[in-house]
Amino acid sequence: MEHHTIATTRLTDAQRIDWLQLIRSDNVGPRTFRSLVNHFGSARAALERLPELARRGGAARIGRICTAAEAEREIAASRRIGVSLVAPGEDGYPPRLATIDDAPPLLALRGAPEPAMRPMIGVVGSRNASGAGLKFAQTLAHDLGEAGFVVASGLARGIDAAAHRAALATGTLAVLAGGHDRIYPPEHEDLLAAILDAGGNAISEMPLGHVPRARDFPRRNRLISGVALGVVIVEAAHRSGSLITARFANEQGREVFAVPGSPLDPRAAGTNALIKQGASLVTEAADIIHAVAPIMERPLELPAGEPDEPGTFDREPEADQRARIVGLLGPSPLGLDDLIRMAEVPPAVVRMVLLELELAGRLERHGGGMVSLV
Amino acid sequence: MEHHTIATTRLTDAQRIDWLQLIRSDNVGPRTFRSLVNHFGSARAALERLPELARRGGAARIGRICTAAEAEREIAASRRIGVSLVAPGEDGYPPRLATIDDAPPLLALRGAPEPAMRPMIGVVGSRNASGAGLKFAQTLAHDLGEAGFVVASGLARGIDAAAHRAALATGTLAVLAGGHDRIYPPEHEDLLAAILDAGGNAISEMPLGHVPRARDFPRRNRLISGVALGVVIVEAAHRSGSLITARFANEQGREVFAVPGSPLDPRAAGTNALIKQGASLVTEAADIIHAVAPIMERPLELPAGEPDEPGTFDREPEADQRARIVGLLGPSPLGLDDLIRMAEVPPAVVRMVLLELELAGRLERHGGGMVSLV
Repeated sequence: MEHHTIATTRLTDAQRIDWLQLIRSDNVGPRTFRSLVNHFGSARAALERLPELARRGGAARIGRICTAAEAEREIAASRRIGVSLVAPGEDGYPPRLATIDDAPPLLALRGAPEPAMRPMIGVVGSRNASGAGLKFAQTLAHDLGEAGFVVASGLARGIDAAAHRAALATGTLAVLAGGHDRIYPPEHEDLLAAILDAGGNAISEMPLGHVPRARDFPRRNRLISGVALGVVIVEAAHRSGSLITARFANEQGREVFAVPGSPLDPRAAGTNALIKQGASLVTEAADIIHAVAPIMERPLELPAGEPDEPGTFDREPEADQRARIVGLLGPSPLGLDDLIRMAEVPPAVVRMVLLELELAGRLERHGGGMVSLV
Repeated sequence: MEHHTIATTRLTDAQRIDWLQLIRSDNVGPRTFRSLVNHFGSARAALERLPELARRGGAARIGRICTAAEAEREIAASRRIGVSLVAPGEDGYPPRLATIDDAPPLLALRGAPEPAMRPMIGVVGSRNASGAGLKFAQTLAHDLGEAGFVVASGLARGIDAAAHRAALATGTLAVLAGGHDRIYPPEHEDLLAAILDAGGNAISEMPLGHVPRARDFPRRNRLISGVALGVVIVEAAHRSGSLITARFANEQGREVFAVPGSPLDPRAAGTNALIKQGASLVTEAADIIHAVAPIMERPLELPAGEPDEPGTFDREPEADQRARIVGLLGPSPLGLDDLIRMAEVPPAVVRMVLLELELAGRLERHGGGMVSLV
């Protein structure tokens, strides 16, 4: 099966604390984290600049910065329940996940690192699945496992649970929306225990103690597609959460597979619609295995950083530049490229202003390089 | 809706008798008919040459040639039951059917000519359909009819009958495998009567009295796709006859639509496989209406004739040329272009030898210009 040739990096203990501090600080998401490190050279340097940047961005109140002591406590508490915090390129960080542009800088991994490095297929679907849907998910997950793939899913009721269970013996990955000590739904703590006992994994980008809220589930779904070569949607009504996973998969360049159903069955409305939109129709595991084989041959492409001209790091944007950029932004998402063109200021300055706004809690980042004011 | 701009031709009574004689003669199918008329300029001229050509092709026994009296009797008997024999370009000959390369030179049409000129969609599927399949076929045929399309189908049990019935009020076309006086299945004579009473049509390329045999059904299926802009397969198991209609539709450049179903439902195995192969997934009539709209804007393209150098009509192929061509042929289908290249004789001579062999009952023509020895 797949052999990755990525250079394996390894953070020092001090770096890991810096990274965790930065990603756990207010208004810092994975994209901001990357921008900050690109601009300032290291998480430590970025941390020192956070208050100033947020102030320049017009923060009403400067967000909380995670302290070194808090980061150390999270690392220690994680270790006690068998969870390690791994960075892209480190052992246990699913290699494909590192290729998405909002990859978590640190991923909380439970279980041995080896299975998390294997090729994965996401299998997701309705919580209130039909008997046929559950049976199909089982067969599919079993056959994918036999073919050497780890089955990634969301530990939800219905299709997700059926897929995890059928892949226990061959390896399965539960992708959590909350912290490792806040399993949802609670009745699947047993299933999670079975997954770990069998040598599988669970991952989360959230801190311990984080109770998953509604908005964390779509955010989590990008990780299910992110770790995988492709995602199979087994049963999904219109507007089902599984369709969000399919949308992420598309944006991430992952294969999207969908299981068809009768047009008279509302539980197939979402999957049939996906096939109309170009998803591959799946009736058996071989359809998936055949489709992803050529993708596994290609080397992984890590996202390029944002190269900045040396010396622009510390130059504060001029007030009129900042005003022009803020004036162009509004509640509707605007492309970064368009913004740079319209603002007529150097790209590095635009990115710096966006960082300031983001750290001030005034900017929202969307997929595909789109930004809007909050 | 669609407006055809084909020049409307009209055969003389004498020509119609000639044409009927030629197409009703042994070993003359639609393709041979066209080759003969292209080579000899008219059906009359071709009829005079048939015995000689068959002899040159090595016929063990010269096939029967339909007499003028027989042709006249068929025309008169057809007229008595409201059936007219129409040629491509004549009123009542479905315009799109004229564009396939094995279009019947004369089509026996029952019912008024007008509906046969309207845009059509083929709706076909299993005889032993599920309740859901029957219901879906009804809804689809009804909605296609409301949108102005004639629903073409094969008068079979199951999906075909459901589609015809749901489109009675808006217009439906029954495509028969046997003669107009040999309805199959017999219990659908009532359905056919209802179709005609409602102003719909039935067509057949077979003579009166022809009892449909197994091999006539696939042959008939090419007419269902041939008359239509596209064909919808509603339910089909593996190896279902409806898949033959889909294959013809593909070869004829028609749109192929398929209705999905659960991978666990064997009645959806054929349609799911079609979608994997590129057919459009259909869950509602709008999918079809939307897909065929741009096709209806384009002018119809009639198949080009086979241009021959003047003077080659009457030149008999030399014995060694004929021997070389026969030597290259075998039971496996061979492309006409390959045969011409390998034989190293002029294309017109190859076509003449093939005509001779065909009229001698020694040649079989397949789709895509392939030929084989019988």
